[in-house]
Amino acid sequence: MHTQTLQLRSPYLIFLGDESRATYAKTGKGIADWRPELCAGQLRLSDEALDLNLPDMSVRVAADSGIGSLIVGTALVGGSIPDGWLDTLCDAAAAGIDIVAGLHTRLDSIAVLRDAAATGGGKLIDVRIPPTDLPVASGKKRSGKRLLTVGTDCALGKKYTALQLERDMRAAGFSADFRASGQTGIMIAGTGIPIDCVVADFISGAAEMLSPDNNPQHWDIIEGQGSIYHPGYAAVSHGLLIGSQADVFVVCHAGGRTHIEGWEHYPLPSIGEVIERTIAIGSLTNPNIRCAGISVNTLSIAAGEREAYLAQLSVKYGLPCVDPMVNGTSAIIDQLS
Amino acid sequence: MHTQTLQLRSPYLIFLGDESRATYAKTGKGIADWRPELCAGQLRLSDEALDLNLPDMSVRVAADSGIGSLIVGTALVGGSIPDGWLDTLCDAAAAGIDIVAGLHTRLDSIAVLRDAAATGGGKLIDVRIPPTDLPVASGKKRSGKRLLTVGTDCALGKKYTALQLERDMRAAGFSADFRASGQTGIMIAGTGIPIDCVVADFISGAAEMLSPDNNPQHWDIIEGQGSIYHPGYAAVSHGLLIGSQADVFVVCHAGGRTHIEGWEHYPLPSIGEVIERTIAIGSLTNPNIRCAGISVNTLSIAAGEREAYLAQLSVKYGLPCVDPMVNGTSAIIDQLS
Repeated sequence: MHTQTLQLRSPYLIFLGDESRATYAKTGKGIADWRPELCAGQLRLSDEALDLNLPDMSVRVAADSGIGSLIVGTALVGGSIPDGWLDTLCDAAAAGIDIVAGLHTRLDSIAVLRDAAATGGGKLIDVRIPPTDLPVASGKKRSGKRLLTVGTDCALGKKYTALQLERDMRAAGFSADFRASGQTGIMIAGTGIPIDCVVADFISGAAEMLSPDNNPQHWDIIEGQGSIYHPGYAAVSHGLLIGSQADVFVVCHAGGRTHIEGWEHYPLPSIGEVIERTIAIGSLTNPNIRCAGISVNTLSIAAGEREAYLAQLSVKYGLPCVDPMVNGTSAIIDQLS
Repeated sequence: MHTQTLQLRSPYLIFLGDESRATYAKTGKGIADWRPELCAGQLRLSDEALDLNLPDMSVRVAADSGIGSLIVGTALVGGSIPDGWLDTLCDAAAAGIDIVAGLHTRLDSIAVLRDAAATGGGKLIDVRIPPTDLPVASGKKRSGKRLLTVGTDCALGKKYTALQLERDMRAAGFSADFRASGQTGIMIAGTGIPIDCVVADFISGAAEMLSPDNNPQHWDIIEGQGSIYHPGYAAVSHGLLIGSQADVFVVCHAGGRTHIEGWEHYPLPSIGEVIERTIAIGSLTNPNIRCAGISVNTLSIAAGEREAYLAQLSVKYGLPCVDPMVNGTSAIIDQLS
C-alpha cells in the first residue's frame, strides 16, 4: 500500500533458537497464535526449545519450499545475537530468505550476515527501524473508521486487545485490519510502523501513514502505545492518538495494578481520567471521538472474582468491560456502527 | 555539564557566505544579538553579504586568534551547502576550527570536509543531530526552578521570549540560563538538545537532560517547541512539557494570527485553551505548574493599537501581557519568586 510502512514477506519460518522459556518466545508464539495462516514452519536449534506446534523445518527445506522470511521469535536479555545462531541465520540469508528481527543489535551491523544477504538476495529487516521518508502530520480527515487501543499504562494488553478485536470483528462480518505500531505487532501483522522509534517531529505523521484512507465502512484497529499519563512515554501516546484520528477508543487496563510499572512514584491514572484526557486530546483531529469499552487484563484477579470485577467497572463507567482473552470482545463490538 | 547536551566551543566566527537577505541570516544575527560576548568575528564571502557589525576575519586570522567554532549563520532553501562555501569551510576545519551547522545536508556527509576535519582535528557539529545516549524520562523531581515558553502555534517567538526573559532576569539579579531545544537556539546558547529530532521514546528524557538539577534559586528558561494544539507537532510539545517539569510557563502568541500556520484547516487555539491544557498535562510531573504571563509578537498589530491590544489580553486573562521585543519582560518576571 504505502511505501512508508514496513512489509514482511510470507510465508514465515519462526526461529526459536534454543529458547525453552515461553516468556522469552512471546513474539514467536504471538505470530503463531494470531497469524497461523502465515506460518509455514519453525526452526529450533535444540529439542528443548519451545514447540509452537508448527512443522520443524531446516533452512534447506525452507528455501526449497518458498519461505519468504525467517522471523527471530525470541527476545533476549541484552538484545544481542548469540554466536550460535549466526550460521543458521547466514545460511537462510544466503538462500535468499529475508531475516526479520527486532533486537537491540541491528542485523545489518553483523558483517557475515550482511555478506550472506548480499550473496543470496535476502533482505535484513529490523522492525525497530522506521521508514526514513515519513511526513509531518497533515491533520486532514481520512476516509474509513478507526479504533485505537489506549491504556492506563504500558504492557497490559493494548496489542492483544486490538488483535482480538480484529479477529472478533472479522468473525462478525466487519471489514477490519489490525494496524501494528510496535515491533512485536509488526512481526505479527507483517506490516506496520514502530511509532516509538520515529523521530519526534514525525510521530503523528507516521500514525497517519499507518491507517491510510480506506473504504467508508472499513475499520482499522490500531495498536496503542504507552499511556497519555505516562511520565516517560506520554508524548508517543499523544502523537499516535491525534495522527490516528480515532473514531472510537478502548481503554486497556491491568486489574490490580496501582502504579505505573517501573515508575513506582507515579500512581496509575484511573480509567475515567484516561477516558477524559483521550477525548480532550483526540478531539483535535476527530471531534466525534468516543470510548467504546474497557479491556481488562485479569491475570492478577482470582478467577472467582473476575466477572464481579468486570461488572463493577462496567457499571461505574457505563461501558462494556471485558477481558478479551476470556470473554472475547463482542460486547465492545456491539458499540460500533 | 551533561554529556547528553551538545556543546559548542567559543569564541565564534559567524559565517555568512554571500547572503544579503536578513531573513536568511537570522541564525547569525540571533547569535550576534544574544551572545555578542561569544562572537569574535564574521566571515563574509562577498561585500554584499549581511554585516553583523563584527570584525571581518579570514580563516587564517581566525585560526591564529584561537577561534573555537565557525558557525554557519545562514539558512538556505533546500538546506544544502553551496560549492562556493566548501573551500572556506575546509580551510577552517583543516586549521582545527570546529564547523557548526544545522542544514539539511549533514556536514559529515561531505567527504572533503570530513577529510579536512580529520586532518586539522576540528569537529563537524550538526546541531540537528541529538545525542545518542538519551534516557527515557524518569519523572523524578529535580532541584531548581524552571520556566517554559509554550505557544498557540509554531514560529511566533518562543525562543526570543525565553532569551529576553534570560536577559531581563539576569539584569534583575536572578540566576537564570536559557535552555535551547531547537537548532537556532542551540547555536545561540552554544549548548542544548534539538528536541524535535529526538527519537519518540526519548523526548521527555531529553527534556530532563536539558534542564538538570540546579541550585534551588536558579531558573532554567526553557525554549518551547510547537504547540500542544498543533496537529503535527503536539507530541513534541507534550514531551517537552512533562520532561521540563515546568514550575511556570509563559504563553507565546502572534497577534492577529487566526489559524495554525501551514495548517489552515485548523483554527488557532485561544490563549485560554493553551493555558488550561498546559496546566492539565504539565501537572503530571509538576502539580504546582502555573502560567506567569503572556508574550505577544505584535508585528502585525498597528503600533498605535499595540498597547490597547496587550492591555485587553491582560485584563481578559488576569496575567501580565507584553511584547518582549517592545516592552521587555519585567512585568512577567514580577510574577516569579
